[in-house]
Amino acid sequence: MDGPSFAPGEYHYRRQVQFAETDLAGIVHFSWYFRYMEEAEHALWRAAGLSVAGGGLHWPRVSAHCDYKQPLRFEEEIDVAVRAAFGRRRMQYGFAVTRGETAICTAAMTSVCARIDESGALQPIDIPADVIDRLRAVLGG
Amino acid sequence: MDGPSFAPGEYHYRRQVQFAETDLAGIVHFSWYFRYMEEAEHALWRAAGLSVAGGGLHWPRVSAHCDYKQPLRFEEEIDVAVRAAFGRRRMQYGFAVTRGETAICTAAMTSVCARIDESGALQPIDIPADVIDRLRAVLGG
Amino acid sequence: MDGPSFAPGEYHYRRQVQFAETDLAGIVHFSWYFRYMEEAEHALWRAAGLSVAGGGLHWPRVSAHCDYKQPLRFEEEIDVAVRAAFGRRRMQYGFAVTRGETAICTAAMTSVCARIDESGALQPIDIPADVIDRLRAVLGG
Amino acid sequence: MDGPSFAPGEYHYRRQVQFAETDLAGIVHFSWYFRYMEEAEHALWRAAGLSVAGGGLHWPRVSAHCDYKQPLRFEEEIDVAVRAAFGRRRMQYGFAVTRGETAICTAAMTSVCARIDESGALQPIDIPADVIDRLRAVLGG
Repeated sequence: MDGPSFAPGEYHYRRQVQFAETDLAGIVHFSWYFRYMEEAEHALWRAAGLSVAGGGLHWPRVSAHCDYKQPLRFEEEIDVAVRAAFGRRRMQYGFAVTRGETAICTAAMTSVCARIDESGALQPIDIPADVIDRLRAVLGG
Repeated sequence: MDGPSFAPGEYHYRRQVQFAETDLAGIVHFSWYFRYMEEAEHALWRAAGLSVAGGGLHWPRVSAHCDYKQPLRFEEEIDVAVRAAFGRRRMQYGFAVTRGETAICTAAMTSVCARIDESGALQPIDIPADVIDRLRAVLGG
Repeated sequence: MDGPSFAPGEYHYRRQVQFAETDLAGIVHFSWYFRYMEEAEHALWRAAGLSVAGGGLHWPRVSAHCDYKQPLRFEEEIDVAVRAAFGRRRMQYGFAVTRGETAICTAAMTSVCARIDESGALQPIDIPADVIDRLRAVLGG
Repeated sequence: MDGPSFAPGEYHYRRQVQFAETDLAGIVHFSWYFRYMEEAEHALWRAAGLSVAGGGLHWPRVSAHCDYKQPLRFEEEIDVAVRAAFGRRRMQYGFAVTRGETAICTAAMTSVCARIDESGALQPIDIPADVIDRLRAVLGG
């Protein structure tokens, strides 16, 4: 990270486990946790009056990590807590998923701010100040 | 359909069921059958030297239908037989999925040939003759 | 259908399009519509105090059909209206998806009530009266 | 890890990017990389005469991590190289995905060997020696 500093607050996203997210082991497939976290990220952006699909910008993932603590089952309700840190070109997210009092997983994802150049390739650029300002207005700091 | 006529032959695509395609009932989720069929469609196009993502064209679905006969389980191998009929602007596909001698499902999908106009909307256009010629070269007729 | 009779009312489920549901054409992949409808079905069951995963029963799909009218894009909000008809062993659902005043698709799905026998195979059985009573209490009729 | 030791060899799994795996940015959604890796893991098991769904065992994920280097696009062909290390109850996998000479991502996943106890909960147990022996027969060491 090029100088991350986590904003003090966190955003909460609630979600119910859907049938197609489970596998033959009867629990949510591990790949779905990353989608839950992305949904929470995008809900945070909307709460800030933003869209990850807006402004001609892209936010490709640099890394994603999840530590699984407890399985999730069909129709269980989860809370995804999101935190965010802002570097010059990178955004780092921290996630904690809980079901009631039970810790389900903790996770982190890093994205880079990019635009598509003339050749169609993704080129990293600085995160617009407005994006950081708006997200900080939700998360504090 | 604006004048469909099924080419006489069929294309075969083989596929193995993956873990994430199953659900808590221990069988493949019904929505995955549509993806198996799309994979077979796109493999047919590649066999014809084409790509559904090429030539500035889009092929949005007009309808999709599946009759489920037998469930599928993890690691089972299937054969997807694809047939195609060509209208002026629409393509109709017929599918039969089998596992060995067992019929798994039959299905149909209809797509329309479209381009994106200045406003960003999908506009139906005639299917290029070259697309039909190349697919017929694989399917006969 | 073995004697379907649609209950007079409908249940409404609201949903926002998520990023991972879109494809390179910039619109929701057609296979996702079936998951939206299943989510609405399961929400209807919960509104009736039921779960499709409860009571040792399974509800495998017999058929699924969708007529696509308009594409859906990231972050759009949809309403899925669900209707249901009850046969002896089969349930038939009718769906209408709208985005504001715009019709997005209409669809139908048929499921059969089944239990798993000693050999592990799905065996059709009559739908329990309690299931029909509870769903009718939500849908009327 | 409780004493990991990577087997010297690696297993290779080849895969083509499917349409439904892309998102509106025109590239493969980051969550799909984890499914590619799981597919490679399961192919390794089959090469060893095993199935992750066999023997009454489950292999829930403890952690998953991916470092993304280059995007993937529709119809590109990838090679997933899998390595494995064996602890007493945990298996650790290392992955390297390439497209020709281009490094796409590196990743790691850790699973624990478990059985389902009387209460329906997953209970960690020692990895059967036969599982390790068979995987080592493919990977060496």
